[in-house]
Amino acid sequence: MATTNAPLNILISAAGDDQKWKSVMVDRLPDANIVTEEDDYDPETIDYALFWKQPQGLIKTLPKLKAIFSLGAGVDHVVSSPSLPKELPVIRLEDAGMADQMVQYHLYAALHFMRDFDVYSAQQAKADWTQHDVARISQCRVGVMGLGALGSAVASSLSNLGFTVSGWSRSMKAIEGISTYAGKETLAEFLGQSDILICLLPRTSETENVLNSSTLSFLPKGAAIINAARGAMINEADLLRAIDTGHLRGAFLDVAATEPLPESHPFWDHGKIRITPHIAAATRFEESVDQIAENLDRLARGETPRGLVNREVGY
Amino acid sequence: MATTNAPLNILISAAGDDQKWKSVMVDRLPDANIVTEEDDYDPETIDYALFWKQPQGLIKTLPKLKAIFSLGAGVDHVVSSPSLPKELPVIRLEDAGMADQMVQYHLYAALHFMRDFDVYSAQQAKADWTQHDVARISQCRVGVMGLGALGSAVASSLSNLGFTVSGWSRSMKAIEGISTYAGKETLAEFLGQSDILICLLPRTSETENVLNSSTLSFLPKGAAIINAARGAMINEADLLRAIDTGHLRGAFLDVAATEPLPESHPFWDHGKIRITPHIAAATRFEESVDQIAENLDRLARGETPRGLVNREVGY
Ligand SMILES: NC(=O)c1ccc[n+]([C@@H]2O[C@H](COP(=O)([O-])OP(=O)(O)OC[C@H]3O[C@@H](n4cnc5c(N)ncnc54)[C@H](OP(=O)(O)O)[C@@H]3O)[C@@H](O)[C@H]2O)c1
Ligand SMILES: NC(=O)c1ccc[n+]([C@@H]2O[C@H](COP(=O)([O-])OP(=O)(O)OC[C@H]3O[C@@H](n4cnc5c(N)ncnc54)[C@H](OP(=O)(O)O)[C@@H]3O)[C@@H](O)[C@H]2O)c1
Repeated sequence: MATTNAPLNILISAAGDDQKWKSVMVDRLPDANIVTEEDDYDPETIDYALFWKQPQGLIKTLPKLKAIFSLGAGVDHVVSSPSLPKELPVIRLEDAGMADQMVQYHLYAALHFMRDFDVYSAQQAKADWTQHDVARISQCRVGVMGLGALGSAVASSLSNLGFTVSGWSRSMKAIEGISTYAGKETLAEFLGQSDILICLLPRTSETENVLNSSTLSFLPKGAAIINAARGAMINEADLLRAIDTGHLRGAFLDVAATEPLPESHPFWDHGKIRITPHIAAATRFEESVDQIAENLDRLARGETPRGLVNREVGY
Repeated sequence: MATTNAPLNILISAAGDDQKWKSVMVDRLPDANIVTEEDDYDPETIDYALFWKQPQGLIKTLPKLKAIFSLGAGVDHVVSSPSLPKELPVIRLEDAGMADQMVQYHLYAALHFMRDFDVYSAQQAKADWTQHDVARISQCRVGVMGLGALGSAVASSLSNLGFTVSGWSRSMKAIEGISTYAGKETLAEFLGQSDILICLLPRTSETENVLNSSTLSFLPKGAAIINAARGAMINEADLLRAIDTGHLRGAFLDVAATEPLPESHPFWDHGKIRITPHIAAATRFEESVDQIAENLDRLARGETPRGLVNREVGY
């Protein structure tokens, strides 16, 4: 279908990956003008922006901007900008190759606790061969907070492996094999039956600090936490206290309140905490530009793009 | 179906678990006489024996023995006994709840390498936040040696997760989604395309020492080894050398030539070796006595029991 529209002007600002994004976008949309901040471009002409942690103040230099695409699943880094106009559409990546990676990460992290690999790793350091009974996987209850593009895939795959899985979201969901809870009123009950708690919530004003000394106390004694969403969802001091008092068994974390994690942070050498450097699910260039290109087509046709953020709730 | 036969006399010798096995067997077969070595029994009357690492010499005290049941998947501990009559049927457990556990163990161990958890664990010890690209799972080639009750389940589940999986066995197998190799002549080719090598062979005279300096050299540089079968299949000195020279990335082991692993063994504090104390797949009492009871029925009807060992090849 030939279009007679003028070529789109697209600005990329992607925290170090600008040139890589530019090259895959140019390949995918040869007719568009695709620029980075290094290029000589006229901010007045920019139609769309592709952002990952864009510099403060960049948005307000772009008066004709029609939408912002986040180059990740989360949009906290975009919507937190005070200069973001209230009505400007923000579009995120949905899955785009990340769900498979999240499934891998969470299979590993959940089995880490269920199959006592945390215990055996500590035993190895002491040359200790003690064997422990192998738990039945169906007796291990996993609770997944956030049943979106990533949480629902993780919940289903853990359920398929044999874990007993429940999920918690804002609106009620129906997922084959998963028992579901919705809303704040059900949080205590949901947490009370989660031996392994997975956080895959988006960062919003509602979810920040959702795991704190009070909510962590609802978890069964000996429960473990997996967080590969955002560090802001957990109060780190409360988490450390819950582990050190013996209420929690440990934590498997991919994110932290401050990233990179400062060298002096207590997570690094805590025997019951495993930390990885925010690598649970990398943005895949090919899948992502496909999704962005499809959304540009939808916008051109006046349709709602996939992954349009509800600015009211912030995700 | 009522039988008029005299009650069966069954002897259990199970390395410390005698009483547990006796109680589940008595529940399952209330009409049989079930004894352990502690009981006052007449060896001349014993029809069947349930063995896990039975004491040397016990077999030859049982002149009327009709068959031996191994209380595990492996029968190396039974068939290695010099006093075992050549014609005595030996019956092993097939799966009996072990395949699911093996799948869990190998999902964890394979993701350990594929998702760089070995690297991140070493980085954590140095407070190092360096991120590495996430590999595409389909580009990670897993080779499974042994496609029996356990190996075939592991191969299928890794393939379902997205790994590219091949398998190697004595006779040619056809398994959906897996490329298969059979026989010694294909070993070098099979190993040459295995980025992660899993050993799920039985211990026999043919398989002992199958992984040695020569065969390990066929693996691609940077390959990793997972062995939860038997320690005897790997030459441990050769494995250490292949890791220390940088040819192999590391190993994830559940078994060793000597178990419990001696305190001074180099595996314990080797940074590139993870070792667990032979817990990959525990025998499940309920599933196992069901399988034994069904096999006793088959034997009573003159049928071939499930899991009958081929004494010629030793598994
Ligand atoms: N570590 C990494 O490498 C990495 C990579 C990618 C993404 N992430 C993070 O992963 C998280 C999940 O991403 P996603 O794409 O799956 O998000 P999503 O599709 O937007 O799903 C969000 C889920 O959280 C639920 N939720 C939101 N606010 C809630 C509240 N106040 N109470 C209860 N439930 C609430 C939503 O409920 P409804 O279904 O009712 O709307 C939805 O089920 C995000 O934090 C993202 O930043 C991390
Ligand atoms: N660590 C633990 O907790 C644990 C627990 C249970 C079992 N195990 C071990 O797991 C292993 C696998 O058990 P399983 O029940 O799956 O065994 P299985 O059903 O007997 O399967 C053995 C497989 O190995 C193949 N094989 C045998 N000899 C071979 C040779 N010389 N060359 C090539 N392939 C050969 C067989 O080929 P064919 O198909 O052609 O016969 C078959 O595919 C055993 O070593 C067992 O002792 C360990």
